[in-house]
Amino acid sequence: MSEDRTSPVVAGPENAPGDLLDLLDLEEIEVGLYRGAFVFDEPWALYGGQVAAQCLRAAALTVGPDRQPHSLHGYFLRPGDASIPTVFSVERDRDGRSYTARRVVAVQRGEVIFNMAASFKVAEDGLDAQVPEPPSTTAPEESRAFAIPRLFSFEGRLPEQSRPGLAWPDRFWARSTADLGDDPLLHACALTYLSDISTGLGGFESDGHVSSSSIDHAVWFHRPARLDEWVLCELAPVSVAGGRGLYSESLFDRSGRLLATVAQEALFRRAREH
Amino acid sequence: MSEDRTSPVVAGPENAPGDLLDLLDLEEIEVGLYRGAFVFDEPWALYGGQVAAQCLRAAALTVGPDRQPHSLHGYFLRPGDASIPTVFSVERDRDGRSYTARRVVAVQRGEVIFNMAASFKVAEDGLDAQVPEPPSTTAPEESRAFAIPRLFSFEGRLPEQSRPGLAWPDRFWARSTADLGDDPLLHACALTYLSDISTGLGGFESDGHVSSSSIDHAVWFHRPARLDEWVLCELAPVSVAGGRGLYSESLFDRSGRLLATVAQEALFRRAREH
Repeated sequence: MSEDRTSPVVAGPENAPGDLLDLLDLEEIEVGLYRGAFVFDEPWALYGGQVAAQCLRAAALTVGPDRQPHSLHGYFLRPGDASIPTVFSVERDRDGRSYTARRVVAVQRGEVIFNMAASFKVAEDGLDAQVPEPPSTTAPEESRAFAIPRLFSFEGRLPEQSRPGLAWPDRFWARSTADLGDDPLLHACALTYLSDISTGLGGFESDGHVSSSSIDHAVWFHRPARLDEWVLCELAPVSVAGGRGLYSESLFDRSGRLLATVAQEALFRRAREH
Repeated sequence: MSEDRTSPVVAGPENAPGDLLDLLDLEEIEVGLYRGAFVFDEPWALYGGQVAAQCLRAAALTVGPDRQPHSLHGYFLRPGDASIPTVFSVERDRDGRSYTARRVVAVQRGEVIFNMAASFKVAEDGLDAQVPEPPSTTAPEESRAFAIPRLFSFEGRLPEQSRPGLAWPDRFWARSTADLGDDPLLHACALTYLSDISTGLGGFESDGHVSSSSIDHAVWFHRPARLDEWVLCELAPVSVAGGRGLYSESLFDRSGRLLATVAQEALFRRAREH
């Protein structure tokens, strides 16, 4: 957190002077009211993962350090502009003994571009079990590098695919190029940043139909994650109908632990209708 | 909608004079402010599916009839009381060309017990495809009747199970005993009502660990549904760790169409810790 930063930092993904930590840095205007300090120098469409990650950070700034996020749910309401700051307003719905609930709206030019509800909880032991298992695929060191579109300060590797030939791979390794340190919150924010790739409907693409803008977004953080180590992202289409589609995503660490589950609905229409 | 109903109807699940339509009936206090007219005569814990379904109804009362819900996301924040009315306050986040976004809070005794965001859209044609397929199991007419706990005005049938011996079945047929008519909104609300059974973690229950209260809730309405016809509910555990667990649910009609996907996190702890 740079307290003395009073004007936005201007950067582009190609020649960016900063990294993911700068993107997650928010200026406090008042308790519960924050502003993103880092913008890009072109009027790109704001990447949804950025606004979601910043919303989570804003919510967390009103929550004690004994609590970490375990889930979030949001809706993308309007296109954002990556070249201007976003303001985040946090509402405190509940501060309980174990759980804390927050809602956040992200505003640009007087309009809500994204809303989010998130829940935080104190650490707790308990039975640990998971059903999804990671596919056996190529290790990141043996996979070719590939650029994950729209992601800033992240690198990717393309392992052996389960379904070769998709326009967008439904399986990839990802890792923050910034050292994120030991604060688990920053890793949860980085995971959120990574999680809006919106490409899980590739398996349904046919007959001119393609997926595009995200509609909603949900993340369940099952286990502590490190996003500056390699994470395997496995996307699975669920359904398309009525101009939209749902996919889910499982994120695993290298040892096969299920770190998080993501669910997202996105537009799914004939390309000419966009 | 009974406009002349000025005081709550008192009913219990056993000797209830009403049905699901009464439960979904809301009194308009002001545009965007509604009150549930139907209460039970005992101070039971309010069933989460009820408050979620009523929230969806409240949101829909502020949306034109050309738009139907396609998804909702909510958090259960405090226990509710089934013997007193709940008030629903609707916030209009966006009225777009195709999509409409609403947020709703449900209040009892001055406290928010549940918050929800929902999205509605105009009907649209498009490619139709689904990945989950219904299991081949026993038809409802050949399955034995069983009572679905907490559900009012619903009947259940227990088909052949994929995992016999669970404390709670992870597969069942359900149907509203009320004729819900032809308004698709009431069927979406009935599906929401049905969808908080919270029993999808049964497969993980062992060593004294059991699932209990719902934490959050998400429903994606993929295709128009009729809830006064038999619907097959198939629950699948995803993960448990840190005192909570995630499961997903697929709802199919008799022809195998995927009607909706549900995701829910619930408490998952040793029984003695409750």
